[in-house]
Amino acid sequence: MIASAPDVDAMADAIAAGSPRALARGLTWVETGGPRAEALCARLYPRGGRAHVIGITGSPGGGKSTLVRALARVARARDRHVGIIAVDPSSPFSGGAILGDRIRMNDLALDPGVFIRSMATRGALGGLARATADAVDLMDAAGWDPIFVETVGVGQDEVDVMRLAETVIVVSVPGLGDDVQALKAGILEIADVHVVNKADRDGADRTQSDLRSMLHLLPHAEGAWLPPILPTVAAREEGIDAVVAALDAHRAALAASGDGEARRRRNARARVLQIAQGLLADAMTHGDGGEPAALVEDVARRALAPHAAARMLLTMARAPGLSPAGTPRSREDGT
Amino acid sequence: MIASAPDVDAMADAIAAGSPRALARGLTWVETGGPRAEALCARLYPRGGRAHVIGITGSPGGGKSTLVRALARVARARDRHVGIIAVDPSSPFSGGAILGDRIRMNDLALDPGVFIRSMATRGALGGLARATADAVDLMDAAGWDPIFVETVGVGQDEVDVMRLAETVIVVSVPGLGDDVQALKAGILEIADVHVVNKADRDGADRTQSDLRSMLHLLPHAEGAWLPPILPTVAAREEGIDAVVAALDAHRAALAASGDGEARRRRNARARVLQIAQGLLADAMTHGDGGEPAALVEDVARRALAPHAAARMLLTMARAPGLSPAGTPRSREDGT
Repeated sequence: MIASAPDVDAMADAIAAGSPRALARGLTWVETGGPRAEALCARLYPRGGRAHVIGITGSPGGGKSTLVRALARVARARDRHVGIIAVDPSSPFSGGAILGDRIRMNDLALDPGVFIRSMATRGALGGLARATADAVDLMDAAGWDPIFVETVGVGQDEVDVMRLAETVIVVSVPGLGDDVQALKAGILEIADVHVVNKADRDGADRTQSDLRSMLHLLPHAEGAWLPPILPTVAAREEGIDAVVAALDAHRAALAASGDGEARRRRNARARVLQIAQGLLADAMTHGDGGEPAALVEDVARRALAPHAAARMLLTMARAPGLSPAGTPRSREDGT
Repeated sequence: MIASAPDVDAMADAIAAGSPRALARGLTWVETGGPRAEALCARLYPRGGRAHVIGITGSPGGGKSTLVRALARVARARDRHVGIIAVDPSSPFSGGAILGDRIRMNDLALDPGVFIRSMATRGALGGLARATADAVDLMDAAGWDPIFVETVGVGQDEVDVMRLAETVIVVSVPGLGDDVQALKAGILEIADVHVVNKADRDGADRTQSDLRSMLHLLPHAEGAWLPPILPTVAAREEGIDAVVAALDAHRAALAASGDGEARRRRNARARVLQIAQGLLADAMTHGDGGEPAALVEDVARRALAPHAAARMLLTMARAPGLSPAGTPRSREDGT
């Protein structure tokens, strides 16, 4: 069942009023995706735009969760309400599920000034990046600020997720081989702040100088923000203040230079495109009447050229069966 | 200038008749993309479907080009006309450019029974996978068979490109760390044939047994093709016959089991979706009249919800300005 417009209005109002229970339910809606989530987001999107959204990515085992926990504690000491979204594209768990790393956040989970959510929405309509961006919007509209978005890995999914952040922290650890560094290139390019965590380990200086060399290879416009490289030992809360200062400085620099404006546009462009591409993928997978399947069949037996089929798919993705008025599929009824 | 229909017809006929010069020009068309390429592909697509399309991917430095060269020599000895497409998503070179690895293919390049093409079409309308798939169709319609499609890296682009192959070879080399193996997981899953190249190196047995362990972790349906793990020293042409036999056996197994049918459908689905998503990306980047830019602006200042903007973009991607009748942009005039 699709929620009626009054239901969506009531939910939007409750979320905007700051109800954590409403937020939790709304996040389940956006995790599932579909018309109900789209309607909810449409109502809450205009109310957001205030929170500092901070992405944290890097290699598995780099201590990202520990770093987020330490940063969240500083924000709490400033009396801010902290949102945390932990994104795991490969996990079958979702919603309220507590992932391994999350358990170590338990001290924060007891604090009503911290809202923690795991997202593991493989198969969500429109994809993981769509769902995560919508989740950030809901938290933002509900007044959580800052919002930390942490990913577990270093793949394309993670890069897409990071596009929704205002500030991106890339966490490195000493001792990674050159091969891995090279593969991480796509991630390094999106860093606004580099953190070398576990900096008490052997090779931390080397990792910092490697990062510095790599930064020199990236294009850098005159006067643009230069990502600092900051050593931390997050488990002992060492070096955290410098990271917090860098986050604040980055936000201030974006506002002062106009780069923040450009970034908002860039992120909006990427997001609109992702949603539209997700609608296509959903039309292909869940399209009614077997139409996409017939298209594919015709292409496979060479009775229809792939380009012509693609143009037909664009039409199908806009068809009523998949518009907000329709019912693409429902993976749950209530919650 | 968009080529007129008679021009496209003449080009299609010349390619189908086997003119290497026409094929080279047609490949430049599809590299650029746009209406002219789309029209050409529409005419040639029904004439293809015969070639054995073999994808080769794996870590950089694994000796993929050397392996392709060795496999091409065997095919030439069988009097087949061999097509080779070398795909480098990160390279700024394209068209007739000779990349580093290509130079080592020079002995083959002098053989009129071998057609070699480098594709490096970052920025091509519709993306690299679209352009590569179209290039394969042209070669296929021109009678080149087998067609080897070799990629340089192991990213998502490469996985997308591999989706157009009937048989995928993944090349591993001894001595890769566990981290890299894990990152390659997405590639390993698409392998039909595993080659451990440079098998005279220390650790080759270990690499083979690691691969075997990993294969056991992947789902495997009763009676389905089980990817063999084959050691080679491609530079000395050792182990090549076993790889050729595996390629033939895989093709025969696909035909016998009906899995080939399923794979053609799966590949067609992925390709149609990719083209449609590429049309969206092109509409966003090259859309006429500033409409997509205005959408993005409205989303960035929160006057329009991203989902609503995405639905508008779907309409724009179908607008005449970007349909086959229109003129999205022209990066070249003749050739």
